[in-house]
Amino acid sequence: MTARLPETIRWVGGVDGHLELLDQTQLPQREQVLCIDNVGDLIAAIVRLSVRGAPAIGVAAAYGLVLGVRSAPSDREGFLEQLRAVAAALRAARPTAVNLAWALDRCLRACEVTPTAASLLYESASIHADEVAMARAIGMHGAALIPDGATIMTHCNTGRLATAGDGTALAVVFAAWREGRRFDVLAGETRPLLQGARLTALELSREGIPVRVCADGAGPGLIQRGEVDLVLVGADRIAGNGDAANKVGTYSLALACAARGVPFYVVAPTSTLDVGMATGEEIPIEERDALEVTELLGERIAPEGVGARNPAFDVTPHHLITGIVTDAGVLSPPYSGQIAALISR
Amino acid sequence: MTARLPETIRWVGGVDGHLELLDQTQLPQREQVLCIDNVGDLIAAIVRLSVRGAPAIGVAAAYGLVLGVRSAPSDREGFLEQLRAVAAALRAARPTAVNLAWALDRCLRACEVTPTAASLLYESASIHADEVAMARAIGMHGAALIPDGATIMTHCNTGRLATAGDGTALAVVFAAWREGRRFDVLAGETRPLLQGARLTALELSREGIPVRVCADGAGPGLIQRGEVDLVLVGADRIAGNGDAANKVGTYSLALACAARGVPFYVVAPTSTLDVGMATGEEIPIEERDALEVTELLGERIAPEGVGARNPAFDVTPHHLITGIVTDAGVLSPPYSGQIAALISR
Repeated sequence: MTARLPETIRWVGGVDGHLELLDQTQLPQREQVLCIDNVGDLIAAIVRLSVRGAPAIGVAAAYGLVLGVRSAPSDREGFLEQLRAVAAALRAARPTAVNLAWALDRCLRACEVTPTAASLLYESASIHADEVAMARAIGMHGAALIPDGATIMTHCNTGRLATAGDGTALAVVFAAWREGRRFDVLAGETRPLLQGARLTALELSREGIPVRVCADGAGPGLIQRGEVDLVLVGADRIAGNGDAANKVGTYSLALACAARGVPFYVVAPTSTLDVGMATGEEIPIEERDALEVTELLGERIAPEGVGARNPAFDVTPHHLITGIVTDAGVLSPPYSGQIAALISR
Repeated sequence: MTARLPETIRWVGGVDGHLELLDQTQLPQREQVLCIDNVGDLIAAIVRLSVRGAPAIGVAAAYGLVLGVRSAPSDREGFLEQLRAVAAALRAARPTAVNLAWALDRCLRACEVTPTAASLLYESASIHADEVAMARAIGMHGAALIPDGATIMTHCNTGRLATAGDGTALAVVFAAWREGRRFDVLAGETRPLLQGARLTALELSREGIPVRVCADGAGPGLIQRGEVDLVLVGADRIAGNGDAANKVGTYSLALACAARGVPFYVVAPTSTLDVGMATGEEIPIEERDALEVTELLGERIAPEGVGARNPAFDVTPHHLITGIVTDAGVLSPPYSGQIAALISR
């Protein structure tokens, strides 16, 4: 067990302060903290995934509004006009994660009342604190799902590096471990950007939790052969009927779990629920740069001239999901009514 | 369209000759031909996948027997004893592909009649020629399955680099293209060793066939969204009931095809059928070195101390397979009786 990682997201100072981000593209090799003092640099950091994970993107974007309005006119209309422009630019950085839009909208509502940078910073810090509390609640609700001696499979990274707190799916893992249960974790490496092999393996091994990685294509076969007791994944957006968008590769694990009767849980804060979309078919799927697939570590792998399809997410239909673990409790199917009730609280 | 690749496997000279292998670990960056003149070097080349693909391994191993018996005693018993020892060493190089054992057994039977290196070389060259003819027959039988304008998904590499001839699944693609049908191909990159991104993309683009690659986790989502018209994969061993072992990642494509009603075909020569195993559960699954997953291009990706599961294959159950394309025709479910009939021909 080695030193704890630097914080994923940290605001330093008052309204004239800056944002610190642990650069996730360089982990686990280097623990470099980026100092971000303007919104353009933040958008670039979100796009290249220096900060990533739906909840973390939401928190970072909220602070990004503070960075973006410091030069705004001080009159109400001028301030709000610049605020909306900055929010639109941030919103466009990643289209699939709903938490980004959720956090921006919450800040915009706060500024309708008090249109100042100070009010924005207060709201951003509140979102940040709420995320930490949500992760704690998620862990508490989900921990009982993990039996002692289990092998848990997960995908992508849903821990402290993906959120402001303990994470989503990994918050459940951390909570069960703190409660004294012992188990091991299989982490899908998560091509193309290898968040599982780099980030999930790092977070778990730092806590002394046994973790091994596997190729994404290996997960379904290991589930089929009875080597996995449950699957825990995060979500970037959950539609009103429970269909869940998550990192590409998630859907195949859900299919294999259903075929073998292995429990498949989606873990996400209520801010990930989007009743504005009735089903997963409406969720926009971000297509990322082909070079993420055709190159590895900057070296060309595919022959010259060959391109790639690179969807960043896939959608797991609700009927394959055993339960949705939220900060408000564990939802069981059918999901529609419960999701609508949670949203309207 | 650029120059044709060097031959995958070529025997040069008589019984004192040597084996030439196109080193597949260096493609597509370098087209280097390895000259192999002893069986130890050949086993090392099979293990590190310089030669790979179930049919190609079978042909290479047959020639490997020639390399291994040149120093054998000339008396019948001494010769056969050394032959069996060499065959055992070759057989252990890759446990999942049945063609390897099949080719070795065919050579051993030939030597029971005429125990000489010359007889072995004749039998090896016959296996080689048979594979070329089988690939042609496979292409002929399978080509009609590909509609004009289709998007075909495939996995790993099943072309000229995986066999002695046109391939298995890719032989079908090449044959349909030669018949004038036009389509495009999505190739799963095939972690950990990227045979799809490196080899399949190379073979298809050299023929002018449009090909793009995708991460293995992306395949099932693309199938779900209706972006794939059929899936064609190879096989390393097919059990008596039609369960098919193939490169890890195959099973997830079959699950997604079944969920969406997309045809899923396994393409393999009859030498891949193994009625000695009743179901896929009996097929041994090779577990390869964890470093293939935890490192990329020799650089550590996972944190130090973190290991990996690295099964090289998974098993697709027969009920997910729309048809099995062989050199003897296309089998439709139920497979058991037809497979037994083909084997006993």
